[in-house]
Amino acid sequence: MDALLARYRTVRATSESLAAPLSPEDQQVQSMPDVSPTKWHLAHVTWFFETFILREFMADYAVYHPKFAYLFNSYYEAAGPRHARPARGLLTRPSADEVIAYRRHVDRAMERLLSAPPRNSANRIAELVTLGVNHEQQHQELLLMDIKHVFSCSPLAPAYEPTTASDAPKNGGAGGDTLDWHEVEGGVRGIGHAGDGFAYDNESPRHDVLLRDFRIASRLVTNGEYLEFVEDRGYERSEHWFMDGIETVRANDWRGPLYWREKDGERFEFTLAGLQPLDPDKPVSHLSYYEAAAYAAWAGKRLATEAEWETAAAASEPAAESEANLLESGRLHPAPAPKKKNRPRQMIGDVWEWTQSAYNSYPGYRPARGAIGEYNGKFMTGQMVLRGGCCVTPGGHARATYRNFFYPHQRWMFSGIRLADDR
Amino acid sequence: MDALLARYRTVRATSESLAAPLSPEDQQVQSMPDVSPTKWHLAHVTWFFETFILREFMADYAVYHPKFAYLFNSYYEAAGPRHARPARGLLTRPSADEVIAYRRHVDRAMERLLSAPPRNSANRIAELVTLGVNHEQQHQELLLMDIKHVFSCSPLAPAYEPTTASDAPKNGGAGGDTLDWHEVEGGVRGIGHAGDGFAYDNESPRHDVLLRDFRIASRLVTNGEYLEFVEDRGYERSEHWFMDGIETVRANDWRGPLYWREKDGERFEFTLAGLQPLDPDKPVSHLSYYEAAAYAAWAGKRLATEAEWETAAAASEPAAESEANLLESGRLHPAPAPKKKNRPRQMIGDVWEWTQSAYNSYPGYRPARGAIGEYNGKFMTGQMVLRGGCCVTPGGHARATYRNFFYPHQRWMFSGIRLADDR
Amino acid sequence: MDALLARYRTVRATSESLAAPLSPEDQQVQSMPDVSPTKWHLAHVTWFFETFILREFMADYAVYHPKFAYLFNSYYEAAGPRHARPARGLLTRPSADEVIAYRRHVDRAMERLLSAPPRNSANRIAELVTLGVNHEQQHQELLLMDIKHVFSCSPLAPAYEPTTASDAPKNGGAGGDTLDWHEVEGGVRGIGHAGDGFAYDNESPRHDVLLRDFRIASRLVTNGEYLEFVEDRGYERSEHWFMDGIETVRANDWRGPLYWREKDGERFEFTLAGLQPLDPDKPVSHLSYYEAAAYAAWAGKRLATEAEWETAAAASEPAAESEANLLESGRLHPAPAPKKKNRPRQMIGDVWEWTQSAYNSYPGYRPARGAIGEYNGKFMTGQMVLRGGCCVTPGGHARATYRNFFYPHQRWMFSGIRLADDR
Amino acid sequence: MDALLARYRTVRATSESLAAPLSPEDQQVQSMPDVSPTKWHLAHVTWFFETFILREFMADYAVYHPKFAYLFNSYYEAAGPRHARPARGLLTRPSADEVIAYRRHVDRAMERLLSAPPRNSANRIAELVTLGVNHEQQHQELLLMDIKHVFSCSPLAPAYEPTTASDAPKNGGAGGDTLDWHEVEGGVRGIGHAGDGFAYDNESPRHDVLLRDFRIASRLVTNGEYLEFVEDRGYERSEHWFMDGIETVRANDWRGPLYWREKDGERFEFTLAGLQPLDPDKPVSHLSYYEAAAYAAWAGKRLATEAEWETAAAASEPAAESEANLLESGRLHPAPAPKKKNRPRQMIGDVWEWTQSAYNSYPGYRPARGAIGEYNGKFMTGQMVLRGGCCVTPGGHARATYRNFFYPHQRWMFSGIRLADDR
Repeated sequence: MDALLARYRTVRATSESLAAPLSPEDQQVQSMPDVSPTKWHLAHVTWFFETFILREFMADYAVYHPKFAYLFNSYYEAAGPRHARPARGLLTRPSADEVIAYRRHVDRAMERLLSAPPRNSANRIAELVTLGVNHEQQHQELLLMDIKHVFSCSPLAPAYEPTTASDAPKNGGAGGDTLDWHEVEGGVRGIGHAGDGFAYDNESPRHDVLLRDFRIASRLVTNGEYLEFVEDRGYERSEHWFMDGIETVRANDWRGPLYWREKDGERFEFTLAGLQPLDPDKPVSHLSYYEAAAYAAWAGKRLATEAEWETAAAASEPAAESEANLLESGRLHPAPAPKKKNRPRQMIGDVWEWTQSAYNSYPGYRPARGAIGEYNGKFMTGQMVLRGGCCVTPGGHARATYRNFFYPHQRWMFSGIRLADDR
Repeated sequence: MDALLARYRTVRATSESLAAPLSPEDQQVQSMPDVSPTKWHLAHVTWFFETFILREFMADYAVYHPKFAYLFNSYYEAAGPRHARPARGLLTRPSADEVIAYRRHVDRAMERLLSAPPRNSANRIAELVTLGVNHEQQHQELLLMDIKHVFSCSPLAPAYEPTTASDAPKNGGAGGDTLDWHEVEGGVRGIGHAGDGFAYDNESPRHDVLLRDFRIASRLVTNGEYLEFVEDRGYERSEHWFMDGIETVRANDWRGPLYWREKDGERFEFTLAGLQPLDPDKPVSHLSYYEAAAYAAWAGKRLATEAEWETAAAASEPAAESEANLLESGRLHPAPAPKKKNRPRQMIGDVWEWTQSAYNSYPGYRPARGAIGEYNGKFMTGQMVLRGGCCVTPGGHARATYRNFFYPHQRWMFSGIRLADDR
Repeated sequence: MDALLARYRTVRATSESLAAPLSPEDQQVQSMPDVSPTKWHLAHVTWFFETFILREFMADYAVYHPKFAYLFNSYYEAAGPRHARPARGLLTRPSADEVIAYRRHVDRAMERLLSAPPRNSANRIAELVTLGVNHEQQHQELLLMDIKHVFSCSPLAPAYEPTTASDAPKNGGAGGDTLDWHEVEGGVRGIGHAGDGFAYDNESPRHDVLLRDFRIASRLVTNGEYLEFVEDRGYERSEHWFMDGIETVRANDWRGPLYWREKDGERFEFTLAGLQPLDPDKPVSHLSYYEAAAYAAWAGKRLATEAEWETAAAASEPAAESEANLLESGRLHPAPAPKKKNRPRQMIGDVWEWTQSAYNSYPGYRPARGAIGEYNGKFMTGQMVLRGGCCVTPGGHARATYRNFFYPHQRWMFSGIRLADDR
Repeated sequence: MDALLARYRTVRATSESLAAPLSPEDQQVQSMPDVSPTKWHLAHVTWFFETFILREFMADYAVYHPKFAYLFNSYYEAAGPRHARPARGLLTRPSADEVIAYRRHVDRAMERLLSAPPRNSANRIAELVTLGVNHEQQHQELLLMDIKHVFSCSPLAPAYEPTTASDAPKNGGAGGDTLDWHEVEGGVRGIGHAGDGFAYDNESPRHDVLLRDFRIASRLVTNGEYLEFVEDRGYERSEHWFMDGIETVRANDWRGPLYWREKDGERFEFTLAGLQPLDPDKPVSHLSYYEAAAYAAWAGKRLATEAEWETAAAASEPAAESEANLLESGRLHPAPAPKKKNRPRQMIGDVWEWTQSAYNSYPGYRPARGAIGEYNGKFMTGQMVLRGGCCVTPGGHARATYRNFFYPHQRWMFSGIRLADDR
């Protein structure tokens, strides 16, 4: 329990340090329905501990505020009614300061509970704390994605931080590497999570899949490569696009990735460090599934399935492992891993990689009972799987079996492209 | 070529006989963007033959009208600009009569071409005619789905035909059968089309999949069974629904299948024969994917994957075959097939069965070059696969490998539920 | 009563002759919520006679169809529930032929009633028939406005009739006349209807208004003059526009009057005779209030108030009278009135002239009791008054006191500009 | 100039004291497009002085921030491009503190300019400062309206201030007075502003109007009276409503004034002091024009025209004057004026009173040249005039000739009803 408490403290402290550069005003705004205010993230993850742990397992716990359950429930129907998602930005009260006070209140109770957990629920509590800590890490990533979007809406183009560290891929740019192909033999392979470490329920059960021979790119597609597609009139040539994709492009007048900007003939990218010259060597990011798939079609290739991706990641496990280890060390911005020949690079911690797999349950999957069961299963329609984590994913949070998911039109997350092909 | 010409004639005549009960006004209306006017269907399938066959292979072919290519192109970007889909119902000209004249013009040319095809393109022509004939059959089904929707919008609830023949499942109702389970062994199985008969490109290539043991219901879910779900407050209990599903239910105030009606405490169903008392024995129809999945969750079961469905259909091939054969005979409304114990019934020709598989390309799939290549591939995002054909699918058109696809919220097609489960 | 019966017959026959050039398909379509299908107009005016006269005053009258009251009530809340306006185009039944049969049924009953009206309700019946006949004339104009819009949506640009007669201003074009100013003295003036002839309730009571000296243009603004505004970047220069106006322009990408078209550098106008070269001498038509007001501001002038307009029309009464008389003669397309110096021309029967007066009740106005009271009063918010009738207004229907009204963004009616100014 | 500088200081200080109870978060939020953030109001009124005075008349003025002109221009097209209105709430930067710093910068420059104005522009500067001060007062009212709306969106129902002082009508409630009628003789009357005091351009020129005899209610309609309408199914009975009104009611499911709430069978009103029991004696407030007009129709009365209102206000000038004087004294919440028999009460400073007059220019009105000319004229379409000021209108700001204007569906301002009738 001590290790868990230490982990709890670290993660809780990290959330607050991520919010530290932000003013109360910055923490207030919801720039679109998908985005939540910083302050809301900080309160919601706290509500999670309060609701699923303290109220369940701590007999004398005093709920901090009777209305917070209503304000800070995200989508758990079984946990009662809740404030409408698109209206989160209207909640000026509680203030950012009061949210910190709420966090303190819950943290104190959690410390007390974890120091002396009731014997016969200790295991269940440990499970839920582990879930809560991972949940808070997810919101750390969301917090950064969201504030990037908020700032991108301002004509002042504010910077979240002075250097580009947060917004930089963990494993560096292409560094002049040509794009090579990693060949993978087909056959029956196991994917999904098994074993002791933490994983979300949607990564289980581990099961066999049948793969054909395929190849997968040794690195991510770069800004420079994507620019060739743009300049080849990629956004106008419907033959490379899904019907839904080209209609989205036309309806929204998309002409490039979400955060690309043009000024006086020069290209820039809006980042967490403000407007920066577009770096051709950096992995292209903030793409919708439609754009990723269109690029792949234009390049005469395709996207990988999630089973292919996971198999390739497992095959280059030492590299992926070392990437992950570095991240696990707790540093949010580790030095890039050394490049290895003939192995896919930039698998973990650079940009989320769109796969061509629709998000669905693994065979035999059953969601947990009660509100916690709503964590993943209810989203298994209409979304696509992305793999690999990104530069704002907390260190150690992503893993080879991790399944992220977004709607095909969304692109405010750090999402990019790795090409694949049949052999 | 003679057999093909005969087939061409039959299919063309069938389309017109389907339109025969409809007035010029009935044939004009587009009741929502998904629906096309009857007249437009009749013209569009004709444009297909004109554009992809006559203009390509008949040197002296005189295009019937210079603007029809613009009016009657559905979605082929490579075939030039086109009239906006939601505005099809605004085209009062050409009239229904003129569309018939257009059909005659193209039919005469097709007769001439097929009687004496240019030698070195005879094979390509035969392929394209086969595609065109199948395409026209798809539109026969759409025509009936669409006119049902048009009529459902009228306070007069008009009947397309006096008897309920068209709207009746090919293989009859449940007939008092209890719902049994057909057990299927897992393993590596082949799915997809191979061999000589016609199939769409999206059914290929045939490939191996790895299945786990599963069971599949011996028959479709009935109106009576679905009514239990409705009366158990199924449309209010979010725990059975996908998030997208329950939000769709709430936004549209859905309380039951699309065509269920209530009047003075009695339940009715709007059919092609007008308003009819709800038959509890008939397969439930006109459901969205969200409703199908929610019903399955409520029942403690799940939907099949498309690979499971196809494997089960192949396993009960004699039955499925005999269903298909009866249909192949050309009668649109054959007598129900004899019931067989322990075999899934109602697989072909009753209602389209939602699977839990997102519509995607089979491994190794490559769309054809040019406009024809847009037939299927560009729709492979955001939609779900349905299997089995329905009561308004033309005889012989559906088959075990046939992949239909709709968006999860759509329900104006004849779509229903077959339950499945793990073993 | 005989004269009234004769009038009834004439008006009823005119409606049908206006629909005669239209196919069943043409009569079916509703191209936007503001538009009604031709067939619907023919049925609705018939329902008016059936509901407010036959059902009230003819004891043995047999209602033609029990659901028609639901289908063909336009907006009379007191007359019961009704079919939603934007869904009128979905009513394929009754067919155009059945609507004619409905008209026959009602006409026969009306003939019988008017031949021998019950003594003590004869006056009330005469009043209501007069209202009904005027109501049907209004719908004759709507029918032509609406079918023009329907046809304008077709890439085939169909013609309603071979010559431009219907779409031509009654009093001809500018004919080279320079725009002169008609000076009017201010003072207390009477406006509104008084006396014996028919007028709508919104033209009463006649009352005094106080006017300042003003001047009003001797003729309407022409296409040629309006083109100067367009070519002077009139649609981009916000300083001439109301805020609501420029926002409407930008949201809808307006660049000229509704029916102006450009093809290969030439300008055309879509008319009831199809696409025609833009005639610079013709009054500009199919403008919104926003455009009319912006043009006036650009020209350094203003629009007249409705009191000014009516006073000017009364001042040039002989001319207006002779215009009206010609129209009264029953010919829909009379020869243009002879031009008179120093008098406003083109006052009646050319284009509806936007005034700067919001549509409101005259002082002392009280709507009639019951459903008939809904005829005018309930629309007295958000709309602007237009005066003078237009080329598709039936002969004799418009008069100097007539108040038409539309929302400021609407422009599918024949609406144009007459300038005014302070002295 | 000294008096003006003193006035400038007072008004500037008042704005900041109004914002003082609000946290940075409270000042950030835009709860609907009509609402602006507190912070934005404070910056925009400052930009007004900077743009139209300092940049024009102070040669060495250093613009505070190059982008603020873009951020804080409200709608002046002639003053350059601007940030989209509905996106004001996205501007987290500048912070509330930085806005105060901006105010200081401009205030210092204004002090300097007004202490020693350039001789030949002193008059023009004085005019513009007077305009700017009045403009800032308008925004003081908007600030309170807007924050009331923001707080009304929170499930916590926060209070802007502990007492109901701000939200209380200046002249008290009905105090048990029965509703009497003040009779006014018709004739030619002058309305509009003339003379030396400040007025907006839309109040000029003063001009004659012709009125009929009328009567006007001695006081405003109360919550208690309006409740009778609500309980008489007023929101369902279309016969009392304009068509646009009843459609708005149905589309938005309105069942009472904007801020009425029901909880456990009790009625409350959301106020600047949070949720308060509904006071039946208080003037009803936060009504749309549609509701005001429907209430009047239900009561068998009508609303006044703006000319009638102004004439009645002038007739009871002593009372109105004393009300205004009290306000002029600079106290925002003066003691209620003493009641006088047979005179309309509550004319100034209680709730804005809807008139039945559409907002339009007075005869002979010409807007000023340049950006300042956009102040009023461009809004003269689609809106209705309201008269009399309300409880959050700054003391001395409203006057008998003052013309406020809103769209008929808007109701977040303090708007109510005074009945009128013909004699």
